[in-house]
Order: sequence, then structure tokens, then C-alpha cells
Amino acid sequence: MTAFASLEALRRACTELPEPDEAAAEAAWQRQDFLTKPPRSLGRLEEIVAWLARWQHMPRPRLDRIKVLVFAGSHGVTRRGVSAFPAEVTHQMVANFAAGGAAINQLARVAGAELEVIPLQVEHPTGDITREPAMSEEEFLAAVSAGHAAVHENTDLVCIGEMGIGNTTVAAAMAAGLFGGDAADWTGRGTGVDDAGLARKTAAVADALAHHAAALSDPLEVARRLGGRELAAMMGAALAARHHHVPLLVDGFVSTAAVAPLASLHPAGLAHTLAGHVSAEAGHRRLLDRLGLEPLLDLRMRLGEGSGACLAVNVVRAALACFDGMATFADAGVSQG
Amino acid sequence: MTAFASLEALRRACTELPEPDEAAAEAAWQRQDFLTKPPRSLGRLEEIVAWLARWQHMPRPRLDRIKVLVFAGSHGVTRRGVSAFPAEVTHQMVANFAAGGAAINQLARVAGAELEVIPLQVEHPTGDITREPAMSEEEFLAAVSAGHAAVHENTDLVCIGEMGIGNTTVAAAMAAGLFGGDAADWTGRGTGVDDAGLARKTAAVADALAHHAAALSDPLEVARRLGGRELAAMMGAALAARHHHVPLLVDGFVSTAAVAPLASLHPAGLAHTLAGHVSAEAGHRRLLDRLGLEPLLDLRMRLGEGSGACLAVNVVRAALACFDGMATFADAGVSQG
Repeated sequence: MTAFASLEALRRACTELPEPDEAAAEAAWQRQDFLTKPPRSLGRLEEIVAWLARWQHMPRPRLDRIKVLVFAGSHGVTRRGVSAFPAEVTHQMVANFAAGGAAINQLARVAGAELEVIPLQVEHPTGDITREPAMSEEEFLAAVSAGHAAVHENTDLVCIGEMGIGNTTVAAAMAAGLFGGDAADWTGRGTGVDDAGLARKTAAVADALAHHAAALSDPLEVARRLGGRELAAMMGAALAARHHHVPLLVDGFVSTAAVAPLASLHPAGLAHTLAGHVSAEAGHRRLLDRLGLEPLLDLRMRLGEGSGACLAVNVVRAALACFDGMATFADAGVSQG
Repeated sequence: MTAFASLEALRRACTELPEPDEAAAEAAWQRQDFLTKPPRSLGRLEEIVAWLARWQHMPRPRLDRIKVLVFAGSHGVTRRGVSAFPAEVTHQMVANFAAGGAAINQLARVAGAELEVIPLQVEHPTGDITREPAMSEEEFLAAVSAGHAAVHENTDLVCIGEMGIGNTTVAAAMAAGLFGGDAADWTGRGTGVDDAGLARKTAAVADALAHHAAALSDPLEVARRLGGRELAAMMGAALAARHHHVPLLVDGFVSTAAVAPLASLHPAGLAHTLAGHVSAEAGHRRLLDRLGLEPLLDLRMRLGEGSGACLAVNVVRAALACFDGMATFADAGVSQG
């Protein structure tokens, strides 16, 4: 059940990573240059196919099975008045996911992706990060392991998303803990707090950074102390994706912050990852820049749930459809330039 | 067959436009504010639904029938060596469309859109715009009318795209003719000309602007003298879409230049239009800015064929799926902020 029995076992999994398959990527590029279009004129669509080939380790990648994993968790820091919504909305939205009524249900259907919602002790909030670690080591490893277990080898692409009132606060704390800067640099309006709420939220992030200052040189401690269960699970899912040769689409600010420790633990820790979109949440663009991730979409969304990643699946599908379905210059009798 | 018997009849159709249905748009906004998400958190997806409602004149818009219209034409200016591909590729690509081997065939299938390819006398190139009008009045009106006839009232969304070796040259000339600036401001590498080709192309645009300088105050004359048959047809299609209450997605630089005269003829002439993407072709972003169009996608594509518009259909579909399928706060028992 628990993939990682200790922080050190987890750390090894984060630093001993499989290599990309550059030969598969190169084969994909070669095929694309023979298809009936000016070379490279499909832009990022061609890069996406090479990325799928590289990380699926297949010169002809597949998208037969796409999973959207939505992790939910509750946050002790909500007692600081950091969200526009009451904490019980996390639980209510998990029920809404199950009933098919949330945005992600519709977006997964349109994208032809299989949605799985994984609540992580939603009835038991994490510790308030402004005065204690979010999780004990045991709790943290259990959450990472739950995320890790959710990604299977027979998957062709995985999207990660989340639901958790208060989690843009802990995401801001994690981003600041990993990359430095003031609390205000990373703190935004989340689901829509007013000015007073934003001030409380920024203060909570600053307090959390001050309280845990001595422990922030270790990215795993950043995740355990400043994060949350659904964030730890997303990190576990991203790690499993890498080990199982499954390309990964991250969603918004929270999911990006959740996987960011992997890039701090290994310079290529997120090389198998594309950013589905850039959120309207302040701090997401900054975080993507730090990670060297260029978002596929920018539609001013700020919902979470995996919505931006799932929307980007349509682009990935279109890219592979061109790769698989287009004629070559020779087959179509089209003159090359 | 010919919708417009004279330039003046066409001009009337361009200036006497149906109004938007703001009540339908407002009803769509109201519904969206009750759905289980923070208000406006789906960003441009919510704007898209309001746009569909406004221009379909329906508070609950539909996407049952989406058409992708690809117009093809040949250009006399190709004799100036403005393209990386030989002129016969236009004809060859029309055959490739028919055989299902082009990018747009794959993208239309993924988007669930119906593709129609409309060749416009591909065997008869237009006049070389550097020394004569591209088309006579009769030829121009026939092309506009062909595009107009291709859009039907029972369509819910139309995408326009094109194929025509040499047509980024005439598009640059049209953009400069309508909005001013030097030839170099609007001229890019198209399908991939080298530096010498780009110099020939820029010179051709400058020559065309000089030759027709006295006639460029009339947007319809810009389209007739500097454009091409497939561009005139796209303008006709965009005009028919407006009159038939069909929202319009434009594609890249060529299709945007083609419909730009409508905005010069009426301040709201393109109000029913969204830009599917911004092309990597130099000049497209500048042209979109002039028209006040913010592209939905930016994926460094530069193919034409309607590819960017068609890719954006997936975003439009996702937007409507959320609108139609999401639960309200009341129905789902979720607390509002």
C-alpha cells in the first residue's frame, strides 16, 4: 500500500530517474518532416508528439488511455480566513465530482479522458502551516504513496488536478519555500478573496515561511511542512508517471507547486511534464518560468480540478491525430519546397 | 448563384448588419454565475459561451453542426518567386484534402467538424498584383458570392481557412493597404522562404502597394486589387455568417486579412468573430491587434488550411459542455462563497 516507507526511500525515487528515449523522439521528428505541410509548420503540435514519443519510449506514441486524477484534501490553514469559500466546500465538491456535476466531469468527457477522484482524508484537515507542519512524516509518505499508486503503467497520458479549499495558500508557501521571494510575490486571490482576505492570506504565507524557515533547504520538507495531502499525492503521481513512462500534464498553480520539489531534487525531475495552461492566479506564470515550463493554453482560467490540463488534452490528441493520419509528400504526390 | 450583382450591393450587405442579441448573452452569463465554480473562474470559456449566445441569438447555444470551409485559389504573384513551394502545390493539396491526407482532415475529425473544400478556379491564377488588379469586378463578386453561398443558416459555428501558394504575399498587401505601414511590417516567411525569398516577397508587396496606391481608400477595392479568390470567398463567408447568425472562427494571417475589410466597412463588422489562434507568421499578431481580436490559442502554428481555427473548436466545445453539463450550487448542495 505505502510505496515509500521512509523519506530516504522517497528521495531515492526522486533522484534515480529513468532516461528519456531520444531515439524515439528523433524518429517522430523524422516522420513529421515527411508529412504534407511545410517543415515544423504545426509548431508546438509537432513538439508535443516528440515529447510523447520521448517519454512513452515509443516512436509511434499512443493515446488510447488518458487518465485525469483529481486529488482532494483539507487544510488547517483555512482557520486563518484565507479563502472566499467555507472549508466544507471541499467535501461538497467531491460529491459533485461523483455526481458528474463539476466542470472537470464535462472537460474529461470532451477530452475522452477517464476521470478518477481520490479524496485524501478530507474530513481530517492538515496542520495549520502557520504554526506546525502540515503533515507528520507518516502522513506525508502515505499521501505521496496514494498518488503514486494511482498511476499505472498501461496509461498513455496522465493529467493531475486538485480540489481543496485553502490550497492556493499552501501552494504559495511551497513556491516561496522552494524559490524564495516574499509571500506577496506568490499569493493571489485563489477562488476570489477580497482585499482583506488577500491580506490575511499573504500574512498566513509569511507566518508559515517564518515558522518553518530552518527546514526549507530540503524540498521534501517543504512539501511535508508547507503543503497538503492532495499536493503530496500529486507529487507522488508525477513521480510514478516518470518511472512508468507516462507523460504528465500539470494543471494550475497548485498542481505546479505540488510537483515543483521534483525539479529541486533532480535537474530533469520534471522533464516528462508539460503545463496544460497558465492560470489567472498570480504566481503561476512566475512558477512556470522558474521551472522552464511553457504553458500550452492561456484562457484566464483559475478553477483547478485539472481543468486546464484536461482542456490541453484536446491539443495533444489533435497533435497525434495529425502525426498518425497525415499523408507523406510522396504518398500524396505533393511537391516539396 | 451570384449573391452580389454589383460592388454596391455587396457594400450594402457589409454596412447593414444585424444587431447582436445582448439579452441572450446576458441570460448565458446569469446561468454561468450559478454553476458550481467560483464566479468567472472558467475565464475565456465563459466569454465564449456568451459570444455563442449573442451571435446565435440563443440563450442556450448549440454546437450540433460545425463547418470548416477551406477555400483554395492561385496567385499570379507567385511568378515573383515569393514562396518556398511551387504554385502547383495548391492543386496538389486540394487533391490531398479530398483524399483525407492533410492536417485539416485530421483536425476536423478530432473537433467533430464537417470539412468542405471549395477550390476557386485553381487552374486560373489571379492577376499579378504588382502590376494589375488580382481580379476584375466580376471575378471578385463571383468569388465573394461563392464564399457567401457556402454558409448556411442551419450551421452553429463556421471556421474559415485557405490553401493558396503565394497567399501570404497578397494577405500582407491587403493588411498594408487597409492599415498602412511598410511592406516589411506585414511580410513574413509564409511556408518558409529563405532570406532572398523574403526580400523578393517584401519587394512584391511594396510594388503592389505603389501600383494600386490611388485606389486603397475603399476596402472593397483593396480586396479586389490586392487579394485573391480564396480571400474574397472568405470575406463572403464571414459576411454570410453574420447575416445568418452563425458565429465565426478565423484561422491565421491570410484568413484574418481576408475578413479585415469588413471591419473597415463597419465598426462592428467582425463583432461575430473570434480568432482561433495567432500564427507564427509575422504580421498576424499585429493584424489581430488592429482588429481588437485576442487569439484563443498560441501554438506557433503557421500552416493555414483552417488548422488553428479548427483546433480552437475543441475549446469552444469544452466551453459549451461546461455550460450545458455542470450542476448549479443549489442542485449540487455546494455552499457559495
